[in-house]
Amino acid sequence: MKNIAYYNGRVAPLDEMMVPMNDRACYFGDGVYDATCAVNHVPMAFDDHIDRIYRSAKLIDIDIPMEKDEMKRMLMSLIEQVEGDCLFVYWQVTRGVGMRSHAYSGAQSKPSIWAFVRPCSMRDPYGAYRCITMDDTRFLHCNIKTINLLPAVIANQRAEEAGCDETIFHRGDRVTECSHSNVHIIKDGVLRTAPCDNLILPGITRAHILNICAKAGIPVVEEPFTLEEMMAADEVFFSSSSALTCRVREIDGKPVGMKDEATFARIRDAYQQELRAECGLA
Amino acid sequence: MKNIAYYNGRVAPLDEMMVPMNDRACYFGDGVYDATCAVNHVPMAFDDHIDRIYRSAKLIDIDIPMEKDEMKRMLMSLIEQVEGDCLFVYWQVTRGVGMRSHAYSGAQSKPSIWAFVRPCSMRDPYGAYRCITMDDTRFLHCNIKTINLLPAVIANQRAEEAGCDETIFHRGDRVTECSHSNVHIIKDGVLRTAPCDNLILPGITRAHILNICAKAGIPVVEEPFTLEEMMAADEVFFSSSSALTCRVREIDGKPVGMKDEATFARIRDAYQQELRAECGLA
Repeated sequence: MKNIAYYNGRVAPLDEMMVPMNDRACYFGDGVYDATCAVNHVPMAFDDHIDRIYRSAKLIDIDIPMEKDEMKRMLMSLIEQVEGDCLFVYWQVTRGVGMRSHAYSGAQSKPSIWAFVRPCSMRDPYGAYRCITMDDTRFLHCNIKTINLLPAVIANQRAEEAGCDETIFHRGDRVTECSHSNVHIIKDGVLRTAPCDNLILPGITRAHILNICAKAGIPVVEEPFTLEEMMAADEVFFSSSSALTCRVREIDGKPVGMKDEATFARIRDAYQQELRAECGLA
Repeated sequence: MKNIAYYNGRVAPLDEMMVPMNDRACYFGDGVYDATCAVNHVPMAFDDHIDRIYRSAKLIDIDIPMEKDEMKRMLMSLIEQVEGDCLFVYWQVTRGVGMRSHAYSGAQSKPSIWAFVRPCSMRDPYGAYRCITMDDTRFLHCNIKTINLLPAVIANQRAEEAGCDETIFHRGDRVTECSHSNVHIIKDGVLRTAPCDNLILPGITRAHILNICAKAGIPVVEEPFTLEEMMAADEVFFSSSSALTCRVREIDGKPVGMKDEATFARIRDAYQQELRAECGLA
């Protein structure tokens, strides 16, 4: 199949799948999601993503009505039915279906499980990308991967309108993360990245990067950095499960980074190698 | 009919209405809404609500593909088909249907128009209500009536769990608004209410209350107030299009207000009278 969608046990082509209007996704964005890429039909860092959606759900008081193993089997069965070397695997859990009411202790179905799989292409890991910056006006629960994504939508649109690849958010002077990726800097051989507080998503690629640095002996400082520090860094890169590690060459029209390719390349290459091994391509 | 739903021209009973999974409501909460009550099949402050959803849509870059008059006719035709003295009229506009992608300049349908009408009961305007308070952790676009409502959902649920009627948000010491209503205080005969900045929704009932105060010679101060000022006020009340004016007698378990019924009653009664006249009940 070209793509496939799943909703509470039903399966259909993605652009034909219908869902109940009364699903709380539709009125409140009342749910959480996760996503990864499947290369060679192997979803990358699958257990990490599965674990994260259960954590996200718990943080907004949703009890996922499916065991982790069953969720993995369901997603694998979708992945196996779609053609393509690289697939985008997306799934979400919403609070269920019922008459619209903010509070959720009233009558409604058990939480809904949604998923889709479709072909995608990943960003070139050897490219160099352009970003803009924007005030981070999002809610204070950015550690939870919810579907309340309107500020991220607008930010990403602004990047596209500027002919750029990502938007880097900042709260005052503090850089937080991007519209759908984490952002890191390298200065004097040290990787610096924001700590996992409520202002950033605990990225799975971010966690893998920290492991790689530990193994490679690259020092890591998990502390916030400022816009000024970012502009003066030796390297700036963003990371996500679909973008992996993307080196940044320009922010708001000004050249940045591109001064310590050796350190950046050690991280990038180790992660590429890790993923190739995981997906049976090494 | 008991209730009715509308989606892009299709009509069905609300719990049977299906919508495309790829509507951007489902992945991003990428849309805006408005709602009012229809009493005697007359939607209250209809033009105000219609105007507001066009303003909300514009603020997130959605161009509603329907004229205001046509939207009013569509909603009236739904209202006329549903039985009941008091109906909840809800409608939303989302950015359309297309393959999931944060940025929206790519291929997707024109914006989607959703609506439903169902019976409701309004709160007793002569009651006295109980509230809790919560940290306001929402995004900084609370002036836009979007469907990114997860923090409001959680806050309203916490009120319900506490056996209370609403949750009053505060940012630090400043009271902002409630989970789905505005909040006001009366002190020494003066109405005080937060100004319409990006931290509160410009409530339509709020605007009517200010008009009523102007006509009745009740002084109004549109300035933020603190938690301490609220706890020490002569009266506290919240307002919305479905709750109208609700007097508050207790916050976080402590008695509040209930010391200037005369001033509160002038506002409440004038608004009740205005609505009865509007709905042909006076």
